[in-house]
Amino acid sequence: MDVQALSQRLSTLGVSSSSSAPAALLSTYFFTPKSGSKHPDNAEQDLKLVVVALEDAKNVGPAKILAAQVGLKDMRAVSGADLEKLLGRTRDQASPLSLPPSLAPSTLVITSNSLPSASAVSVPSPSDPSSALVLAAADFRKVVDQLKQEGAAVKEAEFAVKGAEPAAPAAAAAAAPAAAKSADKNAPSAAAARQAELEGQAGVQLGLTVKKEQAVFGDWYQQVLIKGDMLDYYDISGCYILKPWSYGIWQEIQTWFDTRIKALGVNNAYFPMFVSSTVLEREKDHIEGFAPEVAWVTRAGKSELEVPIAIRPTSETVMYPYYAKWIRSHRDLPLKLNQWNSVVRWEFKNPQPFLRTREFLWQEGHTAFQTKPEADKEVLEILDLYRGVYEELLAVPVIPGVKSEKEKFAGGLYTTTVEGFIPTTGRGIQGGTSHCLGQNFSKMFNIVVEDPANPGGDKLHVWQNSWGLSTRTIGVMVMIHGDDKGLVLPPRVAQLQVVIVPTGITAKTSDEMRKSLEDEADRLAKELVKAGVKAKADLREGYTPGFKYNDWELKGVPIRLELGPKDFEKKSAMSVRRDNGVKAPLALSDLTTTIPKLLDTIHNDMLERARKTYNESIVKVEEWKELVPTLNQNKVVVLPWCEVEKCEDEIKKRSAEESVSGAEDERAPSAGAKSLCIPHDQERFGSVEGKTCPNCGEKAKRWTLFGRSY
Amino acid sequence: MDVQALSQRLSTLGVSSSSSAPAALLSTYFFTPKSGSKHPDNAEQDLKLVVVALEDAKNVGPAKILAAQVGLKDMRAVSGADLEKLLGRTRDQASPLSLPPSLAPSTLVITSNSLPSASAVSVPSPSDPSSALVLAAADFRKVVDQLKQEGAAVKEAEFAVKGAEPAAPAAAAAAAPAAAKSADKNAPSAAAARQAELEGQAGVQLGLTVKKEQAVFGDWYQQVLIKGDMLDYYDISGCYILKPWSYGIWQEIQTWFDTRIKALGVNNAYFPMFVSSTVLEREKDHIEGFAPEVAWVTRAGKSELEVPIAIRPTSETVMYPYYAKWIRSHRDLPLKLNQWNSVVRWEFKNPQPFLRTREFLWQEGHTAFQTKPEADKEVLEILDLYRGVYEELLAVPVIPGVKSEKEKFAGGLYTTTVEGFIPTTGRGIQGGTSHCLGQNFSKMFNIVVEDPANPGGDKLHVWQNSWGLSTRTIGVMVMIHGDDKGLVLPPRVAQLQVVIVPTGITAKTSDEMRKSLEDEADRLAKELVKAGVKAKADLREGYTPGFKYNDWELKGVPIRLELGPKDFEKKSAMSVRRDNGVKAPLALSDLTTTIPKLLDTIHNDMLERARKTYNESIVKVEEWKELVPTLNQNKVVVLPWCEVEKCEDEIKKRSAEESVSGAEDERAPSAGAKSLCIPHDQERFGSVEGKTCPNCGEKAKRWTLFGRSY
Repeated sequence: MDVQALSQRLSTLGVSSSSSAPAALLSTYFFTPKSGSKHPDNAEQDLKLVVVALEDAKNVGPAKILAAQVGLKDMRAVSGADLEKLLGRTRDQASPLSLPPSLAPSTLVITSNSLPSASAVSVPSPSDPSSALVLAAADFRKVVDQLKQEGAAVKEAEFAVKGAEPAAPAAAAAAAPAAAKSADKNAPSAAAARQAELEGQAGVQLGLTVKKEQAVFGDWYQQVLIKGDMLDYYDISGCYILKPWSYGIWQEIQTWFDTRIKALGVNNAYFPMFVSSTVLEREKDHIEGFAPEVAWVTRAGKSELEVPIAIRPTSETVMYPYYAKWIRSHRDLPLKLNQWNSVVRWEFKNPQPFLRTREFLWQEGHTAFQTKPEADKEVLEILDLYRGVYEELLAVPVIPGVKSEKEKFAGGLYTTTVEGFIPTTGRGIQGGTSHCLGQNFSKMFNIVVEDPANPGGDKLHVWQNSWGLSTRTIGVMVMIHGDDKGLVLPPRVAQLQVVIVPTGITAKTSDEMRKSLEDEADRLAKELVKAGVKAKADLREGYTPGFKYNDWELKGVPIRLELGPKDFEKKSAMSVRRDNGVKAPLALSDLTTTIPKLLDTIHNDMLERARKTYNESIVKVEEWKELVPTLNQNKVVVLPWCEVEKCEDEIKKRSAEESVSGAEDERAPSAGAKSLCIPHDQERFGSVEGKTCPNCGEKAKRWTLFGRSY
Repeated sequence: MDVQALSQRLSTLGVSSSSSAPAALLSTYFFTPKSGSKHPDNAEQDLKLVVVALEDAKNVGPAKILAAQVGLKDMRAVSGADLEKLLGRTRDQASPLSLPPSLAPSTLVITSNSLPSASAVSVPSPSDPSSALVLAAADFRKVVDQLKQEGAAVKEAEFAVKGAEPAAPAAAAAAAPAAAKSADKNAPSAAAARQAELEGQAGVQLGLTVKKEQAVFGDWYQQVLIKGDMLDYYDISGCYILKPWSYGIWQEIQTWFDTRIKALGVNNAYFPMFVSSTVLEREKDHIEGFAPEVAWVTRAGKSELEVPIAIRPTSETVMYPYYAKWIRSHRDLPLKLNQWNSVVRWEFKNPQPFLRTREFLWQEGHTAFQTKPEADKEVLEILDLYRGVYEELLAVPVIPGVKSEKEKFAGGLYTTTVEGFIPTTGRGIQGGTSHCLGQNFSKMFNIVVEDPANPGGDKLHVWQNSWGLSTRTIGVMVMIHGDDKGLVLPPRVAQLQVVIVPTGITAKTSDEMRKSLEDEADRLAKELVKAGVKAKADLREGYTPGFKYNDWELKGVPIRLELGPKDFEKKSAMSVRRDNGVKAPLALSDLTTTIPKLLDTIHNDMLERARKTYNESIVKVEEWKELVPTLNQNKVVVLPWCEVEKCEDEIKKRSAEESVSGAEDERAPSAGAKSLCIPHDQERFGSVEGKTCPNCGEKAKRWTLFGRSY
């Protein structure tokens, strides 16, 4: 939608979308009377705008000086929040291009010494704060004229600073502080700046402007999510909007997983999102793990609550008092419940879309058994379903294993995990966890049954598991498969698997031919849909085939079918794979068999490519000196490890100290290596017999994955 | 599960489950040292328990006097919250029967002059606070002895009050205040008392103990939900646990509705549950409607948030700032998004499971169009889907219509609704609403597009709708179909449609016959499941067929198939309909065709019965004097109404004053009549031509439903 919006805006203005000269990066300042608004109902009447090139702004300094310079008396700068309120725009979306008509009556002061000298200007895209829009100076003038028509009294001012150079990288860099004021500290400001810079030289690019391997990875990730229409930023930091393109993927995961757990006898239920502090704090270790991130409701309407109420960070303590009540006999076992819900963990670390968010969607399963073997068995059954979600749906390879004591779930007995890996950053990522809680919680919450073998004797405390998988799955998938052109969606979860684009239509093409191409594209799409393929024909008017190709590549649609006059005569279409660009003609007659086959091939190729990379990134390290240098090559290491907790702490500390701070990812939580998992498949690494721990020299127990991680 | 739990508990103790004499209603008091606990880690060590018959308690007075009476020095009564913390039980679940072994070491003081004289005692059921458990005095003694074995130092005291009578209704009544201390003010205390009383005479009843038509309706509703395993009470007032039996119904509704809105081009998305105050308060009328019920998060971990953050009561203001951002061109229209989520409205009125809860599950659709006709059309398409959910899935008849200006959605243009009716209480209930918001929000949030007909001219503000359906649907279904035996589930949403129970097995029955009956029951169930019927065989051991019949009737399973030796020989089974008790033999050979037919018949019969009742409950009233007397007969009225807001206020006020306060439902929000809806089908009431409003005498515009309501 962003893409359409931009091109639409441009075409409305009849503005050419390419500009080869360096651009002056414009920034817009807002002022309002110190005395307060004279029009309480529409305070924007009193707003004054100043549009200025950043270079100049830098030379002017603070906003109030700027105001003085351009002759605005008794005015103060408008806060980001008020701006939101007045414009429905965050500060870094605001520019002459994004002004609502309601603002027209106010005065627009264009004041920038460098403007005349600049052959192009760059402003934040009105539809996408992460990208900038570069206009030729003449075109920018058109925008200003339009605002005049809408009633803006435009006055050009000058101020006494030395004429600035046309915007160079320096200008771009200067953009960061401004954008940093926006509601979400993570609004991709640096990216916008870097992009403006690029576009200054290259003209407007609607696609990605940063490369996966070269850019700061975080910038690439943000662009691919926003421009791929997966997600949008929200005005509360750490919260994000899941748009249909990504939420649909979550629904595919839900359907796949829900069917399979029901086959295991799990039922869905829904427990309240609120939990009282007394109950929340019942299990000490557990709550210690979550307390710092718990969000508290203390007020309802105008009245303070007698006791604050927590929003669940997870539901063990929400559910288990009722397990104690419901489980009265061994006949009530096993009890297997799951819920699809959202939980809140108020992280103070930098949020990251899908990977670390303050509210996220997940499922949490909570089961109770009479014996440990039953619990142990289920832990692995669920873990294998998690592996299935990643490998069979998302084409993402994972390594199943068990967490170290240090990394296990707070209050549990042991934690199993499927560990993923992001090659571009060389970081491990926990994909999903299946915990055996042992009898820890059943003792805390007194979940007991009569021992059928010994009636009237000691009560049995039940054995419990809990297991969860979240929308993080989607972030991992994007990071692993995405490329410089945007998203690459695995076929089995893609909301659109095949897009059919009529092409080769020129001035010479007859209307009949055009129509029959479009009709055929539509017919084929319907035929594929009938055959269970998610397909559609892109018959949007006013867009070139090239534009449509880029659009769907950005969004990661697995297969594009190009249908041109020649293909039409040959009764075939040209298929183009998103994952590797391979083109092949397909006969129109049997698309309903060839396309599903091709989709499966694409899935398998994507999975195998990713698996190969993962395997090549796991390096066996048996001497300490190799450890950090290996990590610095974006690898993870597998160590013959002693499994002593103290040793794990040392490994993290030592590796952090020796690391060159992980410049390859600004969001790096730490450059130190922690244990990722002890893989269930030990054989692949050969015998650990007689090997010693590279850190402490003690006898090694098992091969263990260590690495930097998310 | 409750049912099993109780019978299990009893059998473990070898306690007979019937008692014909009046019971002494026992209450348990807890005391702890004023000095504070000497065992911080397990404070329950210091607990002292006093078990006393309520009659005696009444004579003793406050707990501290009681403590003195029985020689507990320097002890104070334990608060309900501490009790929760120590026992994981609410006060009204606590009794000698529900003591965890950890409590054994503490002292139990049995002190009640009336105990020796009572031939039976009644205590709150440990598994279900809404029911009481009646034990013969001798059996209660066994429970005490068991506690002695577990280490309790039991000491019998006496105190100086006149010997009390065995518990009579008075005793039952006295139970209420005690139970009222429980966490959820709505824990069905009165019901428990009334039940204890009944059971005192009738012995333990595991089924419902109150009748739908005779009891306080709220008590019947609570019992049918809890004993029907639909829901449980939660320790935060107004929040409830949806157990699989009810959540499964919600999933059926989701699947049905989700498929149909997708066919209308609606996509699912997920927006954050948090909303900043500035955004929340943007639309004045709208927020006025919700402000008193908004829950605020003010703290995360240990740090206070700079600005409080609201939990969405609904998502208009959450979503529309982004609609403004995403909708840049008429090509972006229509935009149709829906989300399945939970919202929070911190009601201070009495909560009611499913009907009025502080957190509830729903879907909310939010759509934007270029023109009003498109919006109007969708409003009705969605409303008809809501009608479909009620009538085609839940067999609940509803009347589609439009709300009065007074009752419409805050900030919207007009609101359509499907209105339901609860005959037992004579109250209308809003089933689901589909709103046209007009351009109200698009003006607030500046959601505009270029007018394609007039480029560069005035911007068009988009036309918006929002529509929502919640888990209230389930409550309405239960209230309408349930009966004195418990739930009656409509076949299309029932999680179990057919239960097969082997029967007629006596001492004389051969093991072969028993086995072949069970195998056949199992085979038939599997065969039905293959045919798409939700069926299972109840082969639980240790339960009589009669017990199983009651159990599944309580849970509302539409069809029971009884399979006895004689049926087996005749190759047939006896089918019993839950909705009307009708029995008919069915040939085993073609169950896969007869059962689905029968399920459809049941659905249609349930819907038609309910529709007949609804229609008979709508009385045309054209003179004021008939209005309140009609309402008092548990009817709703249809008036030729002037549609003046002031007149609606008067009607409510006048009818409230004239009403005998609605004793038939303690939760009556008001005995006054408000407008329920202006039915779309006006014809059914004949012409309104020349009629006048019964209240103000002005010219009537349309027939309008008025009534008491939820």
